[in-house]
Amino acid sequence: MNRPAQDDICLDLQRIERIGIEEAVFSQGKADVHLHEIAQQALATGKPMLFTRLSQAQLDSFPADVRDKFNYEPISRTGILGPVPNVVLDGQVAIVCAGTSDAFVAREAERTLRHHGVGSKVIMDVGLAGLHRILNRVEEIKKHAIIIVCAGMDAALPTVLGGLVSSMVIAVPTSVGYGVAAGGESALRATLATCSAGVVVTNIDNGFGAACAALRMLRSMKLR
Amino acid sequence: MNRPAQDDICLDLQRIERIGIEEAVFSQGKADVHLHEIAQQALATGKPMLFTRLSQAQLDSFPADVRDKFNYEPISRTGILGPVPNVVLDGQVAIVCAGTSDAFVAREAERTLRHHGVGSKVIMDVGLAGLHRILNRVEEIKKHAIIIVCAGMDAALPTVLGGLVSSMVIAVPTSVGYGVAAGGESALRATLATCSAGVVVTNIDNGFGAACAALRMLRSMKLR
Amino acid sequence: MNRPAQDDICLDLQRIERIGIEEAVFSQGKADVHLHEIAQQALATGKPMLFTRLSQAQLDSFPADVRDKFNYEPISRTGILGPVPNVVLDGQVAIVCAGTSDAFVAREAERTLRHHGVGSKVIMDVGLAGLHRILNRVEEIKKHAIIIVCAGMDAALPTVLGGLVSSMVIAVPTSVGYGVAAGGESALRATLATCSAGVVVTNIDNGFGAACAALRMLRSMKLR
Amino acid sequence: MNRPAQDDICLDLQRIERIGIEEAVFSQGKADVHLHEIAQQALATGKPMLFTRLSQAQLDSFPADVRDKFNYEPISRTGILGPVPNVVLDGQVAIVCAGTSDAFVAREAERTLRHHGVGSKVIMDVGLAGLHRILNRVEEIKKHAIIIVCAGMDAALPTVLGGLVSSMVIAVPTSVGYGVAAGGESALRATLATCSAGVVVTNIDNGFGAACAALRMLRSMKLR
Amino acid sequence: MNRPAQDDICLDLQRIERIGIEEAVFSQGKADVHLHEIAQQALATGKPMLFTRLSQAQLDSFPADVRDKFNYEPISRTGILGPVPNVVLDGQVAIVCAGTSDAFVAREAERTLRHHGVGSKVIMDVGLAGLHRILNRVEEIKKHAIIIVCAGMDAALPTVLGGLVSSMVIAVPTSVGYGVAAGGESALRATLATCSAGVVVTNIDNGFGAACAALRMLRSMKLR
Amino acid sequence: MNRPAQDDICLDLQRIERIGIEEAVFSQGKADVHLHEIAQQALATGKPMLFTRLSQAQLDSFPADVRDKFNYEPISRTGILGPVPNVVLDGQVAIVCAGTSDAFVAREAERTLRHHGVGSKVIMDVGLAGLHRILNRVEEIKKHAIIIVCAGMDAALPTVLGGLVSSMVIAVPTSVGYGVAAGGESALRATLATCSAGVVVTNIDNGFGAACAALRMLRSMKLR
Amino acid sequence: MNRPAQDDICLDLQRIERIGIEEAVFSQGKADVHLHEIAQQALATGKPMLFTRLSQAQLDSFPADVRDKFNYEPISRTGILGPVPNVVLDGQVAIVCAGTSDAFVAREAERTLRHHGVGSKVIMDVGLAGLHRILNRVEEIKKHAIIIVCAGMDAALPTVLGGLVSSMVIAVPTSVGYGVAAGGESALRATLATCSAGVVVTNIDNGFGAACAALRMLRSMKLR
Amino acid sequence: MNRPAQDDICLDLQRIERIGIEEAVFSQGKADVHLHEIAQQALATGKPMLFTRLSQAQLDSFPADVRDKFNYEPISRTGILGPVPNVVLDGQVAIVCAGTSDAFVAREAERTLRHHGVGSKVIMDVGLAGLHRILNRVEEIKKHAIIIVCAGMDAALPTVLGGLVSSMVIAVPTSVGYGVAAGGESALRATLATCSAGVVVTNIDNGFGAACAALRMLRSMKLR
Repeated sequence: MNRPAQDDICLDLQRIERIGIEEAVFSQGKADVHLHEIAQQALATGKPMLFTRLSQAQLDSFPADVRDKFNYEPISRTGILGPVPNVVLDGQVAIVCAGTSDAFVAREAERTLRHHGVGSKVIMDVGLAGLHRILNRVEEIKKHAIIIVCAGMDAALPTVLGGLVSSMVIAVPTSVGYGVAAGGESALRATLATCSAGVVVTNIDNGFGAACAALRMLRSMKLR
Repeated sequence: MNRPAQDDICLDLQRIERIGIEEAVFSQGKADVHLHEIAQQALATGKPMLFTRLSQAQLDSFPADVRDKFNYEPISRTGILGPVPNVVLDGQVAIVCAGTSDAFVAREAERTLRHHGVGSKVIMDVGLAGLHRILNRVEEIKKHAIIIVCAGMDAALPTVLGGLVSSMVIAVPTSVGYGVAAGGESALRATLATCSAGVVVTNIDNGFGAACAALRMLRSMKLR
Repeated sequence: MNRPAQDDICLDLQRIERIGIEEAVFSQGKADVHLHEIAQQALATGKPMLFTRLSQAQLDSFPADVRDKFNYEPISRTGILGPVPNVVLDGQVAIVCAGTSDAFVAREAERTLRHHGVGSKVIMDVGLAGLHRILNRVEEIKKHAIIIVCAGMDAALPTVLGGLVSSMVIAVPTSVGYGVAAGGESALRATLATCSAGVVVTNIDNGFGAACAALRMLRSMKLR
Repeated sequence: MNRPAQDDICLDLQRIERIGIEEAVFSQGKADVHLHEIAQQALATGKPMLFTRLSQAQLDSFPADVRDKFNYEPISRTGILGPVPNVVLDGQVAIVCAGTSDAFVAREAERTLRHHGVGSKVIMDVGLAGLHRILNRVEEIKKHAIIIVCAGMDAALPTVLGGLVSSMVIAVPTSVGYGVAAGGESALRATLATCSAGVVVTNIDNGFGAACAALRMLRSMKLR
Repeated sequence: MNRPAQDDICLDLQRIERIGIEEAVFSQGKADVHLHEIAQQALATGKPMLFTRLSQAQLDSFPADVRDKFNYEPISRTGILGPVPNVVLDGQVAIVCAGTSDAFVAREAERTLRHHGVGSKVIMDVGLAGLHRILNRVEEIKKHAIIIVCAGMDAALPTVLGGLVSSMVIAVPTSVGYGVAAGGESALRATLATCSAGVVVTNIDNGFGAACAALRMLRSMKLR
Repeated sequence: MNRPAQDDICLDLQRIERIGIEEAVFSQGKADVHLHEIAQQALATGKPMLFTRLSQAQLDSFPADVRDKFNYEPISRTGILGPVPNVVLDGQVAIVCAGTSDAFVAREAERTLRHHGVGSKVIMDVGLAGLHRILNRVEEIKKHAIIIVCAGMDAALPTVLGGLVSSMVIAVPTSVGYGVAAGGESALRATLATCSAGVVVTNIDNGFGAACAALRMLRSMKLR
Repeated sequence: MNRPAQDDICLDLQRIERIGIEEAVFSQGKADVHLHEIAQQALATGKPMLFTRLSQAQLDSFPADVRDKFNYEPISRTGILGPVPNVVLDGQVAIVCAGTSDAFVAREAERTLRHHGVGSKVIMDVGLAGLHRILNRVEEIKKHAIIIVCAGMDAALPTVLGGLVSSMVIAVPTSVGYGVAAGGESALRATLATCSAGVVVTNIDNGFGAACAALRMLRSMKLR
Repeated sequence: MNRPAQDDICLDLQRIERIGIEEAVFSQGKADVHLHEIAQQALATGKPMLFTRLSQAQLDSFPADVRDKFNYEPISRTGILGPVPNVVLDGQVAIVCAGTSDAFVAREAERTLRHHGVGSKVIMDVGLAGLHRILNRVEEIKKHAIIIVCAGMDAALPTVLGGLVSSMVIAVPTSVGYGVAAGGESALRATLATCSAGVVVTNIDNGFGAACAALRMLRSMKLR
């Protein structure tokens, strides 16, 4: 009575032509049979494919020959099936993190960009509890056209940066914290309610989405 | 025992140099004495100043000679104190609205851009209940580097547009609707949870903020 | 001091006569002793019984002879105790899914219908991030009197379909996603706030309920 | 600098052909200039148009000659611009209300159906605080293929009806009540979490939407 | 540097004299060292002590000689350290459950009452999806002065009972369900917003609290 | 096209026989035509009728001869249409208020009881900010079988009383306060989460419901 | 049947001896008769009394001779009945505001302190959208033992200050803003989730409470 | 492609000079490689470092020679890497707990203070269900300049203490409880809405933050 797994999959392989962003696989919650089928279809295209939120257990469920083709990074839980491209554009995107705990989001953004051939400058652990840390780096940061800022808890860092630089500031609230912070709802609300004009926001922990917004902007800038 | 109103004001007049966006006045909830004092200080600078969320009653509270200097638009409740600048840049920004009820947000964005010398193409009432309306306009819309999409209720329009164009898509959830929609919380959540990669979001009804994000991007593109 | 398990059970075996839908067992959270007792009573009736949200661990807890009588489908976590009926009605119900991750809900609907002798057409992975996928299938979909649409995250698919077809559209928001989406609250709110007139909604992940609504409608149509 | 009002309007006049439901105007929050322009365009079509959530103040803002063309019902705040059609289909839809306070929702449903030529049987004030009231009417209610149930506070009525009849049950949670009930959130949650299989739900107070769902179903039944 | 566990405990052994209810131990989240120390102090008093929400793992952590003194019931996760008293009062309290899944709450209430020498009549699985089940038992139920009603999901049962009997009705919303129901928030809101006059409510899953309310009432009735 | 108002009303006049509580009219949100029709039907019965949450504007909308028959109390916004009965039972119910701002709830309870012939002792403004105020009154309070405690903000008073007396404690959270307190959600949550065993809770501001619970208990005690 | 107003009032006049803070009157929502009675009792004591959240309409409701004894400040809506004391302690408390819109909270704090004889330094409009504004004032601010920081929207200011000074930082989230910010919930969550160690928080808009916390601390410092 | 772990860390070692509080490590959610690198950097400074929310599994992940340098306390899950300092200040801070279940928060506060050389008096299990417990200890408690009160569920204890003492009262809502209490949201709201003037609040379970607030105050008092 059950349908074959391939009937459940409809990859959007022309997405890159349409919107400049590659189809990617949101792995969390997908059944193993579905992930395996997607990998087969991806391999058949001959192009690399990004899997986000791919757990170690999901990775281990693949047949060994497929698993070996993954470039996997455990902190971001991203797997790139196929070769990781060379960087063909650099110097436009900075990724700034309030705390070391936000690294999993920053790396998802970094790897999504890299998967599209875009390099990025990562600046970690410059949260506002010690304001000098971000002030020391502002000159370096403001040289980038696009700044992705990952912050949890009270997520005040995008506000401060937004008031100091004219670049595009994309805030990624993270789920770091506990109590009222846990889940990132407070960080999300704070970034949306920012008093710094023109800061935009993605879903909680959505490093992938912030990177894709950067890709849209780079394309509008004719850099991609 | 009360302090003079001028002690309560500290305008950030160098904001335009620092981040490319003019200081603006969020009027909602401000006392009349504070608004009047701000207007005096703004007039003294000789430069126009944007007042957002300025109610008709607040406008009427000004002395007649000041009130007459306002260019006021009632649907967006924006007042520009001083001359409205000429458009010096056009063709880069589209503002798309799901419904006529979202006009108050679209106009706030439109006027914020205009206050900075940027023109915009406004396309209204193309919500998904009749999909053909947006499909008929996609070719026209996708020519713009930046697309601001205002939508309330289920706010599905940014998702559809995000899947069709490679431009920067800035979603502004609006408070249009009732029941679960009212206040814009559903629209906000839907835009943040969009399945279209790289759509970014502002606070509910924040046409001003979306316009400012566009200004940041235009500056990064060296167009301003 | 403890009561015998059979005192805790009161099956509603006349439900099918009263409302046209069979009594079913919501397994999640039930104690093993209760599930086992229910299975005994069901087997005694000689009629098949549907168990929803039956985990693999719960299935394994049954005595082997009972366990072997289950037709179990792991993605939907549904177990049918007794024979799965032949399809006696087809072509009236389509089940449409935004993403492969929504399969667990779609299959619960599909199997609930099948348990009542109703076939359904399943169309998977046609979410709005690639609008062409759903547009390619609209003609096929609109031939069905009833369309069950399963979608998580921003759940914009029911709105688009609702604007294109005159069929009954039953939206099932799913818990797929993370951050603001997780748990399905955003999808639920978006479907309830839909701008497409006459779309109705069930609880999050409630494929069973959507199927039962379809059964009600088919009965009103005198097709069952 | 302001755009003419007609540029803000894009009526979907083919909706009736596409999905069997007429375009309607959600009036709440719309500017008077927009409502007036919509009325002009509607009158130009020569077909009646339904305005929902039209306040008395909005109605009074119309020029007298337009205002006089409205058939207005104050409890539901619905205005039909143009003639109210004759009933061409009857006996299929019942509208059941838990309390007299829910009348504003029931009437919106009733008038939306009537605007499409469909009559309905309204049964009011049969809430569960006195169970006999609904039990006395069940035989009468169950003769209808579609039952719209409007209930606020704990909204238990759809559950009880759903367990007694095989008809399609469309629950409309209402905003009636106070404290935890106010706004209809509790009623909404209760109807979505109903233990009666196959009850579907609309947004809070959405009598219009429930009527449109009934219209979809009647069309599938080839009765319209 | 750590304090001895006994310094962290201050049992309220005179509670029974003061308010007619025995001190009890809320075990969930307590450290094993604290539970063990409490058991030692309880044993020293020579009186039985009720432990609620005591997990199997916590039970197993006790030294064998203490663990053997527990009368443990796994569905309610209650442990009575010391002898379970004889029933000295019967016929006053009924415990009614909407579904079998609510058994864990009903049994917590039943055992709390029994720990105080009060018997209770338990009536399970009479939820409203099949209204006849509760109507069949109303005459039996209404003979009790106090009715504890445990219900999850939409929790409509207390409303129906409250409209049929003059007894004290204490509603206990349960965490049974999923989606909007999960966690019991919907059941809680529905019971608080009940349209039946004079139904009172406890915290979600709080069978213990409902039993204690019954104990207060029995004392006021001079039956204890 | 509109239905006559009497078709919208179905009074439950046998409620007093069935559950010991009179039918009452929840006035908030009801249309004037409905209130007037209810009053006519009530007067026809010859028995007094309680209207709760009846605003001054609603009261003034009645024809003068009906309005004059109301015994109206503005703080509780309760109107009794017909004579207020004599007290036939006293000394069983105390109503305790944390602050003067809670008076509107306390009076609704007091008047609901009085409407049923039950007197009550009201003790106001004994909130915990000055603990001595409640300690000074505990001996007096504990003589009552039933204690209704009205408290807003943090609503700690029911917890303290619950730990001091063996009476039935019915907590009524009130909407008094602002910020996190406003609307009574914090008070409601605090009373439901009370650490005092056996305190029961009603909806926010539901003085009527607390009084009805007291009426249920008095009937079980054979005092009514 | 109504009780005299004085029975509803129980002033806590010894509060100042007990905890070092004067009894004050929370006016919002109180009935006029209650406010008038409180004023009479306060005047009888011969000591000044602070009324918070006293609307202009409430003030106007007093008999003229009482109204004239109020020192009223409209932005904070505070009225001091009786003489405003001289400042007897200065230099210990700074009140810092993110925006001019927060003035109503700052002034409530300022006037509560002054009512207790404590002066304060107010520094307004130094929000993070222009970081230089607060950096310019840090040296001046850090000389105070206690810093009350009022901020709405994303409320990032307490975090930045908390990382720069060793003083006690008391954050008062304000209800300034709209969309996700409105009501102050976002500001509240952000301040509670602050990444700066040891910042404490009061209720939204609670300038009175922050001032009282300062009074507690000054007393512990033996300065009062 | 991955960055070395040391590039992700930027310790704020001058925090103690700037604000009087040592840099500390929030361990929850940090990757093991990051924790190990932080420990190396901390050891290199020669000064002890506090790790909060360090799970047993995280502790076990350290190389044995580093793990052995931790002074670990399992209930609070705090690890001090390096020697625990002697107490250099005592008698100023009391830590009061409503229940034994709150011990994990109290110990985090106690150990944070001790890490800074400050002793504290801990008073456990004095919740309001038995009011005498706290009344018995008030004289002892009020001798302390600072009182940290840890309470979950309804968290009424800070309110009662705030009304009895003039000391600084810092409330720490805890996540103890279930149903509406779970997660500490109810306790948080109750403490923020307290009717006792001048009680301040930290994030849920934030014993560390409360201790840091005490450190700020002690420094302002020139005791540190």
